[in-house]
Amino acid sequence: MATAADADAMRRAVELAARGLGSTSPNPVVGCVITDASGAVVGEGFHQKAGGPHAEVHALSAAGGKARGGTAYVTLEPCNHTGRTGPCAQALTEAGIARVVYAVGDPNPQATGGADTLRTAGVAVEQGLLAKEAEAGNAAWLTSVRLGRPYVLWKYAATLDGRTAAEDGSSRWITSAESRADVHRLRAEADAVVVGSGTARTDDPHLAVRGIEGAVQPLRVVVDTEATAVRPGARVLDDAAPTLIAVAEDADTAQLADTDVVRLPRAATGLDIPALLAALDARGVRSVLLEGGPALAGAFVAAGAVDKVVGYLAPVLLGAGPAALTGAGISTIADALRLELTETVRIGPDLRISATPKER
Amino acid sequence: MATAADADAMRRAVELAARGLGSTSPNPVVGCVITDASGAVVGEGFHQKAGGPHAEVHALSAAGGKARGGTAYVTLEPCNHTGRTGPCAQALTEAGIARVVYAVGDPNPQATGGADTLRTAGVAVEQGLLAKEAEAGNAAWLTSVRLGRPYVLWKYAATLDGRTAAEDGSSRWITSAESRADVHRLRAEADAVVVGSGTARTDDPHLAVRGIEGAVQPLRVVVDTEATAVRPGARVLDDAAPTLIAVAEDADTAQLADTDVVRLPRAATGLDIPALLAALDARGVRSVLLEGGPALAGAFVAAGAVDKVVGYLAPVLLGAGPAALTGAGISTIADALRLELTETVRIGPDLRISATPKER
Repeated sequence: MATAADADAMRRAVELAARGLGSTSPNPVVGCVITDASGAVVGEGFHQKAGGPHAEVHALSAAGGKARGGTAYVTLEPCNHTGRTGPCAQALTEAGIARVVYAVGDPNPQATGGADTLRTAGVAVEQGLLAKEAEAGNAAWLTSVRLGRPYVLWKYAATLDGRTAAEDGSSRWITSAESRADVHRLRAEADAVVVGSGTARTDDPHLAVRGIEGAVQPLRVVVDTEATAVRPGARVLDDAAPTLIAVAEDADTAQLADTDVVRLPRAATGLDIPALLAALDARGVRSVLLEGGPALAGAFVAAGAVDKVVGYLAPVLLGAGPAALTGAGISTIADALRLELTETVRIGPDLRISATPKER
Repeated sequence: MATAADADAMRRAVELAARGLGSTSPNPVVGCVITDASGAVVGEGFHQKAGGPHAEVHALSAAGGKARGGTAYVTLEPCNHTGRTGPCAQALTEAGIARVVYAVGDPNPQATGGADTLRTAGVAVEQGLLAKEAEAGNAAWLTSVRLGRPYVLWKYAATLDGRTAAEDGSSRWITSAESRADVHRLRAEADAVVVGSGTARTDDPHLAVRGIEGAVQPLRVVVDTEATAVRPGARVLDDAAPTLIAVAEDADTAQLADTDVVRLPRAATGLDIPALLAALDARGVRSVLLEGGPALAGAFVAAGAVDKVVGYLAPVLLGAGPAALTGAGISTIADALRLELTETVRIGPDLRISATPKER
């Protein structure tokens, strides 16, 4: 049975795991806390980057001989396979850990089985403690493994009346500097940042992460069906981060000569979204930050490919101007995409609203 | 100097005042707490309805002889004039109150001067304790007295992407039953509920308060410029609450024969909003709940006549359909109406956002 001390240790492990957000892909984020036989914390660790030691190995290393007879709290089932690093189930056993408490089972067929290996070695194993919290922290990776496509977070910024710009197109600035800085945190946590051709043409966005030390730059992706929006010299083509331009199979890519391009089937409007996600998945992208514009966001909604919505609402009224979302294929209220609010936070003068779809 | 006990007593007076919201118009809401000479609370009261005793009289009556030598905490400066009830300054003096602490000065020229009268009678008088809280509780009445027009609260309900209905016009229901019940509370607190002709035509709304015991029904106002939207048999014409139809000076009101009608000058589109507010003011309306639609709300915004915005945001995405606000006369971002968020509260699954304009 899990005690309050168990819950405290696991909560700490969930906190530790979150430190890896944005730098562990294609691996999950994982945190680990080790206590000695008396229950005192003797080691902590988290998975810092793909190819580097797993969370358990960091924590065992910190604990040293004090791990013997102790408990390991891990946010994800310890792995059972030898990839770029050895299996953690074995490392825990060899260190003399007597009990392993993990929050979420590993859905990855290559890595699962760690719990069984531990039990066979005589270690007491318990699953499920703070599973909801650990799932939330690993939402992108778990969604990606379960659905076989990258996790998609759609971010938008709008006025209270749902406008992303004024009637004349001016939009600098609707949201505050604090909100815009917060978006860079979202970028840093994502493997790829995706925008459409309208945004590329209008805003000439850079899409790289600024202002976050040590951030791993995401892949910058422009969905440019006709290959006409991203022109030579576009800011997104600089060397601050890798860039991929997604175009239609029959697009003329002459002006994208030196650029990484992926050709995809067309949909009724724009590109086929599942094909785009499959192409990103094939490049190891586990999480996507979809930054717009409204038509591309609508295509993702219509494809059922939005896993989370984060809206930055500015306390501003315009009464005219483009909407945050268009063309989602919803014509009547019964077909509305219904979500559940998961968080509302003040960001400077603005409000950040997070929500997840009710059904998949 | 105000002590912590003073602040506690005034906070209680502010709470008491709020109980009168919706039933004291055209008077303000006022709360009063009386302590005896030792500081113990011996009487409480609030202004319950116009024509009834003021808060101080209720509290003095509860305190009886224990008021002698005590302190009266009042959210608004005690009145100095004999209206339908006698002046409170005199009642406090006669009861032997030694000290009066009030939060907000009375801006009403007919009633002000109570503090001077008290001082002349030898009572210690202090102003300003919890003035901000007391102002907020009396915002509608204070705004009305200061600006010479009713206080206007614009309420809207929309999806996260700012839609008030789906593409086909269906909107039942975007927000939850909890949010819709909360709107009845707003109606109960307002002297008048105002909608435009589009809403009257599309929704045939009733606009009366339901589900709130003892609520004073607001005046139902339809801005029906051409006098064509409100037809005989419309729900707004039943006897659940009084109704007023605002029409253009030259409108043909044949179909409104038995209805209270006010004729107003036209604006570029619709009616002149300042003239409408003046007509409502002349009928004793101190606060207006503006329920839409988008064009009427835009006209109020354009006229600078929105004092507070309350948005019910449903965690729903539509991607098409009418916007919450149109025609506000804002074409570029520099002219946006900027507000300050004052409150965000979950109402069932929805989010209620309150905001007030930054500048008037």
